[in-house]
Amino acid sequence: MSKAISIFDTTLRDGTQGEGISLSVDDKLKIAKRLDQLGVHYIEGGIPGSNNKDIEFFNRVKQLGLSAKITAFGSTRRKDSNAEHDSNLNSLIQSGAQAATLVGKSWDFHVHTALQTSLDENLAMIYDSIAYLKRQGLEVIFDAEHFFDGYKNNPAYALSVLRKAEEAGADWLTMCDTNGGSLPHEVHDIVTVVAGQVTSARLGIHTHNDCELAVANAISAVRAGAKQIQGTMNGYGERCGNANLCSVIPSLQLKLGYNVLEPDQLKQLTSTARYVSEIANVHMPINQPYVGSSAFAHKGGIHVSAILRDSRTYEHIAPETVGNHQRILVSELAGQSNILSKAQEMGIELSSDNDSTRDVISKIKDLEHEGYQFEGADASLELLLRQANGELKELFTFESFKMLVEKTAGNHVVSEAFVKLNIDGTSVYTAAEGNGPVNALDNALRKALISYYPGLQNMHLSDYKVRVLDDKDATASKVRVLIESTDVTNSWNTVGVSSNVIEASWEALVDSLRYALLRQTKRADYEEIPSAGRGLNNH
Amino acid sequence: MSKAISIFDTTLRDGTQGEGISLSVDDKLKIAKRLDQLGVHYIEGGIPGSNNKDIEFFNRVKQLGLSAKITAFGSTRRKDSNAEHDSNLNSLIQSGAQAATLVGKSWDFHVHTALQTSLDENLAMIYDSIAYLKRQGLEVIFDAEHFFDGYKNNPAYALSVLRKAEEAGADWLTMCDTNGGSLPHEVHDIVTVVAGQVTSARLGIHTHNDCELAVANAISAVRAGAKQIQGTMNGYGERCGNANLCSVIPSLQLKLGYNVLEPDQLKQLTSTARYVSEIANVHMPINQPYVGSSAFAHKGGIHVSAILRDSRTYEHIAPETVGNHQRILVSELAGQSNILSKAQEMGIELSSDNDSTRDVISKIKDLEHEGYQFEGADASLELLLRQANGELKELFTFESFKMLVEKTAGNHVVSEAFVKLNIDGTSVYTAAEGNGPVNALDNALRKALISYYPGLQNMHLSDYKVRVLDDKDATASKVRVLIESTDVTNSWNTVGVSSNVIEASWEALVDSLRYALLRQTKRADYEEIPSAGRGLNNH
Repeated sequence: MSKAISIFDTTLRDGTQGEGISLSVDDKLKIAKRLDQLGVHYIEGGIPGSNNKDIEFFNRVKQLGLSAKITAFGSTRRKDSNAEHDSNLNSLIQSGAQAATLVGKSWDFHVHTALQTSLDENLAMIYDSIAYLKRQGLEVIFDAEHFFDGYKNNPAYALSVLRKAEEAGADWLTMCDTNGGSLPHEVHDIVTVVAGQVTSARLGIHTHNDCELAVANAISAVRAGAKQIQGTMNGYGERCGNANLCSVIPSLQLKLGYNVLEPDQLKQLTSTARYVSEIANVHMPINQPYVGSSAFAHKGGIHVSAILRDSRTYEHIAPETVGNHQRILVSELAGQSNILSKAQEMGIELSSDNDSTRDVISKIKDLEHEGYQFEGADASLELLLRQANGELKELFTFESFKMLVEKTAGNHVVSEAFVKLNIDGTSVYTAAEGNGPVNALDNALRKALISYYPGLQNMHLSDYKVRVLDDKDATASKVRVLIESTDVTNSWNTVGVSSNVIEASWEALVDSLRYALLRQTKRADYEEIPSAGRGLNNH
Repeated sequence: MSKAISIFDTTLRDGTQGEGISLSVDDKLKIAKRLDQLGVHYIEGGIPGSNNKDIEFFNRVKQLGLSAKITAFGSTRRKDSNAEHDSNLNSLIQSGAQAATLVGKSWDFHVHTALQTSLDENLAMIYDSIAYLKRQGLEVIFDAEHFFDGYKNNPAYALSVLRKAEEAGADWLTMCDTNGGSLPHEVHDIVTVVAGQVTSARLGIHTHNDCELAVANAISAVRAGAKQIQGTMNGYGERCGNANLCSVIPSLQLKLGYNVLEPDQLKQLTSTARYVSEIANVHMPINQPYVGSSAFAHKGGIHVSAILRDSRTYEHIAPETVGNHQRILVSELAGQSNILSKAQEMGIELSSDNDSTRDVISKIKDLEHEGYQFEGADASLELLLRQANGELKELFTFESFKMLVEKTAGNHVVSEAFVKLNIDGTSVYTAAEGNGPVNALDNALRKALISYYPGLQNMHLSDYKVRVLDDKDATASKVRVLIESTDVTNSWNTVGVSSNVIEASWEALVDSLRYALLRQTKRADYEEIPSAGRGLNNH
């Protein structure tokens, strides 16, 4: 029996049905690229029949040349009508996706209550729709909605739905626990029965987490014969979410010996999970299994002393196999060794045994306590470390900034910034407009510096994120701003924290420019123009 | 066979070993009271042998007169020593707890690696410790640490550990999946074997969530014969946490027919879970099964139209049985039926068959395409719907605002706002400072309005969120601001979107005040002060 399992990711479709999850077309394309690198086999991109955003996604995703199959989601044809004229089915074909996921009813109660049609007409809707898409050359995944509830209520009808879909040519028959109310032993028993009856199509499973059992139910189904798992990154999805692929994949592969991803792909699991949570702007619970920052973090005293003797004493897998790492929470040593190894990575020679190292480590810890996060801001961390090591020559100092946003009824909002810096002993004063306050500050800041360091012309901000750290005090709470900057060859990340979003942005902007200057100084490819450029700007 | 299941809550012990969870003695006492009201049978309060905080808890909890049994946690005696002189065992007795949880090794690897003693001495440590506590009249729960790993490695030894504990008089033998690496079918098979060998003691189960299977494993063990479940509220605990009692309890009771809590107690599950998360100051994931705010929230369009016909179509249980409730979310994925039912919920009579309804639905879809999100902003949605229905009387109009943020080296940042509104035909101009730009705008805006509508004095902003919608253009990208406002009795949410974070915040602020005025107008409890108040402010 083959141990290959196919992973069907529906983060971009069912995932976006989770409360608070909303992805732009660009977000979706970025996530699709990362999912493809991770090695998932199917990526369900959306519902082309429902909105223009999803249609745009299907048009643009083709240009990415992904290895994963792209699938589009839709329902079986309308009752008492014709598949060929069903606008929803035609939108699946027009989407250009290689595969279509077609959802149909398998619970008799739903046929009566939701569809308000006869059991026979539902079978005809399923048959006609699948047969039409197959004639158009699409691979068809049939999602049998509420399959387990349907089977418990009327097993004969639920099975006849699957048989009808198979007869129409469906490639996959996916049993959905749509309401998330089934238990693992029920799923195991029912999938075992189905596996004995289906001959040509392969079986899939789609579970929801309403009982905190989505992962267990998916594994149960695989053990009973399912070959494909539908789920989402981090378990996003309607209500309590879908089966969390970040937990399903490593358990199947590392504990049950199924072939799911290549070992090198599995090592990208943690970074992919965190990337998706960043793009979706959803806070990742620190205690998320396998990929959370606490997943291999040890706090209890007994645990820590044992783990230092042998990791297997309190770790169920080696964290590196999923790209995560061990953390010791109570030990001061852990922080220090992390920072030292990070410094080494950056080519900074910090000795573990001197005062300035101890000072910078304690400063970093204080900053992290205030809300700074250096995991996503390597450039800010490097500036701190080089400063501690006496390697940093500051090329400018801050004197003041003013930032003005003004709006009158019927007019566009106007943002202006005024920045005063000291560059090489001279006070430089610039003013600039922008399409937002941060953009105006960025423009004014760079206007001041570019005349001295023209190499800065090549860099620009490529990402800007704001996170409210503690929502207790509302507008007085702290925010963390993360900025990504890019030049011709590289990109780097900086961080700022303040209770004032403008000040936090300013901090991150200044760090970004300090870092750019540091790199240019080191490359010695910047030109200093002591006076010639000054008159060009408004200072 | 009895279907009674005993719930052993270890939120106050294993729960506090989770990263970021720290409870004062007062916190612990508050939580113990609520757990007792919920009806859990055992409350593990801490480790009296480890710190004075836990000793104080055991002293003070006696005065609460709880029905639940209080238990204290400790390890078996030290190797090559005497139970009677073991300070840790004596601290359990001195704590005054009715029951003691005693953890001992059942994995031979751990005996060698962590304890560094012989297999026989480990058995003696277990026997002596339990026998000593039993002679002192305590109920003893024996926690067989790493039982499943131990059984897989050396079944004979793991079983001999349980037999030894039973022989010494342990009341409960709890099999612990300490590293959280076991799968439900393994747990089922192993507990079945154990259940066939144990005669006098009852069996318990203690699982961890490292594979996202803690709940499934606990249920598996109960189905194989375990009578007690150790777990925590919201699944708090070391690394990825413990079995989440908020999910285990309702599944056992509502789906498998076990007797766990009284139906009236089960109705307190949601409020207890939220209370514990408040006290622990840990954000509760909205999608938490059974008790999360999204657990019965419906977003998909097909789901919503069916749920309006019959809740059972997309709900696995009636939310009220666990004290939760149904919610209908509005989103681009949803059709007209979501918006109409939302309107109905708000008491707005929108007919599905008229132009203004069609217009407002298409307006909402357009706004969502621009980045607005109404599922988290009911108040902004209500303003749109009432406006479409001609029910909204605007009490002020916007003329202009200016917002200034200024910082000079060495000084704190200063934020000022200047707002010009037209209230009842009069132009009102105010200025205010704030601890950030949004706070300054809020202050200036309310300063202008409070002189006319003093009822606004009672409201304040209680939450503020910023989300960058599309980071391609970095500082020129759009941001969405969500604001929560609260007055004495209610809270409401509003939204604003712009490429300028200040403008987006302004939009959400203005909506918040419009909504507050709408509610006050409807309650007719606001006072309009046409001129008297005006001179008080800086206009």
